[in-house]
Parts: sequence; C-alpha cells; structure tokens
Amino acid sequence: MADVKLLGTWPSPFSYRVILALKLKGIDYEYIEQDLSNKSPLLLQSNPVYKKIPVLIHGGNPISESMTILQYIDESWPETHPLLPADPYGRAVARFWIKFAEEKLSSASMIFRTSGEEQGKAVRETVEVMEILEEHAFGSLKEKGFFGGEKVNMVDLAYGVMGRWFDAIEECSGVKVIDPLKFPLFCGWAERFNEAPVIRDNLPGRKELVDFYKRRREMMLAAAAAASN
Amino acid sequence: MADVKLLGTWPSPFSYRVILALKLKGIDYEYIEQDLSNKSPLLLQSNPVYKKIPVLIHGGNPISESMTILQYIDESWPETHPLLPADPYGRAVARFWIKFAEEKLSSASMIFRTSGEEQGKAVRETVEVMEILEEHAFGSLKEKGFFGGEKVNMVDLAYGVMGRWFDAIEECSGVKVIDPLKFPLFCGWAERFNEAPVIRDNLPGRKELVDFYKRRREMMLAAAAAASN
Repeated sequence: MADVKLLGTWPSPFSYRVILALKLKGIDYEYIEQDLSNKSPLLLQSNPVYKKIPVLIHGGNPISESMTILQYIDESWPETHPLLPADPYGRAVARFWIKFAEEKLSSASMIFRTSGEEQGKAVRETVEVMEILEEHAFGSLKEKGFFGGEKVNMVDLAYGVMGRWFDAIEECSGVKVIDPLKFPLFCGWAERFNEAPVIRDNLPGRKELVDFYKRRREMMLAAAAAASN
Repeated sequence: MADVKLLGTWPSPFSYRVILALKLKGIDYEYIEQDLSNKSPLLLQSNPVYKKIPVLIHGGNPISESMTILQYIDESWPETHPLLPADPYGRAVARFWIKFAEEKLSSASMIFRTSGEEQGKAVRETVEVMEILEEHAFGSLKEKGFFGGEKVNMVDLAYGVMGRWFDAIEECSGVKVIDPLKFPLFCGWAERFNEAPVIRDNLPGRKELVDFYKRRREMMLAAAAAASN
C-alpha cells in the first residue's frame, strides 16, 4: 500500500495543483481517479464535509482542499523545492494572493457554465479580477520570473490552473477574455509556467481538455434548457 | 513610531481576531481606529486591493486579511502561545476549518443585513453551516477544550467571532439561530471561549455591540426601503 494516495479527477485544475506540487517535490504517490457521478466510499469517508476531490491521504490521514493540501505537502516534505518563501512577510504576501485566487477565480468557471446575459456578467467579473491581478500581482514579477523567483512556488500553482484552463474554457465557450494586449504580464507568466521544468511534462494535453470541456458544456446547456422548458 | 500598528474598526469581528492574537502573544502595538466612510490614505495605501480593515503594519510592511495576518503573527513571534499545532497534519486540519469559517460564515452576516424572505434564507443557510460544524468540528473537541487543546488557537479565533457577534446579531435582527439544545457543543465552546484568559478581558462589551449593530441595522433597512421606493 502506497503511503501517499491522491484522489482526483483528471480534468480538474484542483487535482493538478496537487499533482504538480507532488511532482515538483519528487514525492511518489498512488493516483486514484474518482468518478464524481458515483462517489467512492473512500472519497466520502475521507472528505465527509465537502465530498469533493482532491483529497491527499498520507499515512492514512486524509487532507482536503487543494491549497491546504499544498501547505501540508510543503510542511511535510520541506527538504526539496520549497513552495513558500522562507520569511514570514514573503509567506504572508503569498497567502494573500492564494486566498485571492480561491475567492475570485470562480467567475471564470461561470463563463463556462453559463450563456447569454449570465455569461456576459461572468466575463465582466473575470476581466475585473484579471485587471487587479495584472496590476498588483503579476506586476510585481520580474520579466522572466515566477512568484517563487526562479522556480515555481505555491502562488504559481494556485494560478497555474488559469493559463491552460482559461484557454480551454475560452475555446469551449466561444468567448475571448484574456487579451494578450490587455494582460501582457499574465500572458507572459502563463507561457513561462506552461514551459517550466516538471510543469510542462505533467499538465494535461490541450486537446484532451478542450474535448472534455466541450462535451461537458453541451451536456450542461442541454440540461439547463430542458429544465427551463 | 511603534513597530507594530493595527488598522481596524472596533465593532468588526475581523479586527478582533487580530487584537486577540496580539494580546495572546503579548505583542505591543499601536491601534489606529479607521473611519470606513472616509478611508485614510494609510489604509488605501496599505491594502490597495480590498481597501478593507484589518491591516497589520509591521516594520513598515502591510499585511491584509485577518487569517493571513494571524498566520503572519504566529510565524513572526513563534516563541509565545503558538496559534497552530506543531505537526503538519494538525496544521492541515486547523487550516481546513479556518477556510471553512472564511467561506461559510458570511451567511450569518446576511441575517443581519436582510429581512423577510431573504433573511429566512440566510437563517436556513446558517443553520446548515452550524449543523456541519456541530457534527464535524465542535464534535471533535474534548468537553472542556479548545481547538488548541487547553489553550485558544487560530481555529478558536476564527470562530470566536461567532459567539459574541451571533448573540448581538440575533438580538438586533429578532431571530434566534443558535438553539443551545440543537448546538450544545458549539454553545459550550463559545462560553469557554468568552471566559478564557486574555479573551474575556479584551472582547468588546455585549451592550456596546448590540447598540452599535441595532443602529446600523436600522440605517441599512431604511436605506434599502428608500432605494426600493
């Protein structure tokens, strides 16, 4: 029995935060793909409050919520590839932006889940969030750097979902949100992130993601149309 | 110039999370009450993203978001009164419940901000949140203990707002949410929290809170009624 197990679903950006952190640290783990339409007893028992993935199970102890898992990983395996700065102020700034990601990125998923007026609202909200990030977060990065300096850290992982998944969401939803002329700092960072060591070899392929989310969006819109008839 | 300053407002439970953490640690600080109807240049410059209190300024560095501030305080002054468990798994469980507090307690403030049907919805949501907490969080406490064991820790501070403020919100709003027969574990813990060393001497008085929130609720409802006419 592997000492570290990860319960996840492959198209979930939240699973990928954890996968990438484990890969960056070089931690061996057993990945157990979950079927969310038929939740396993192991998932229900490991995360009784939310019943959601990802869940990391280490030595029998379950940990839920992707960014809480990343802090646990960083504290349990501190030797390789630190995911937070060493100084308390640097850590506080990192946690500020991690919390911002957790609270504000949901509008982007609403672009994917909706259409028409509701989608327009989600696009406007996402653009506002991106403007704040471009000015205050990505504006603080050096031209070639990451939030972790030369290496990817926990803030990069928190936002790393955005590059690849935004791209897939935009293609599936038929809307363009991330204009490189308007968000050059974010787009430059997203390109560097996708090409960073370990990251580039472990992100899901663009085509698989787009295919998956296209099918899911069609199903969601069909279900919404049926419900409103 | 004091090395540690806190920008807050006295009736804010988020300010009190920070005040109580500083007092528990025995850290000297200068408290600077803020007028949120006329925000100070220091507040705007210290928290340009949210423009909200509380903000801790330590050696000139501003830190925002109450629970991020508490982690900063714990990491900057580790010697006295640790606010998180020492082991990574204990810390992960604590962070899970801190995040739950940050995401789920807003329904309680909606009870205060609304009336009629909208308030009924906020009450139902808050009761659902309390049921989860009673079963999964407060259910894990020993009869006389805190999340920090014999001493108050960061999880206690995250939820500590609830006891005193719920009570004030209930009185101002004329609704009863926290039935001691339904939530005995929470109510027992809240009583212990209010009477814990340092906490009991530094919480705002019940009468001042109720008076303040009564006036504020009258103003909010009057403004809402005027807007809908």
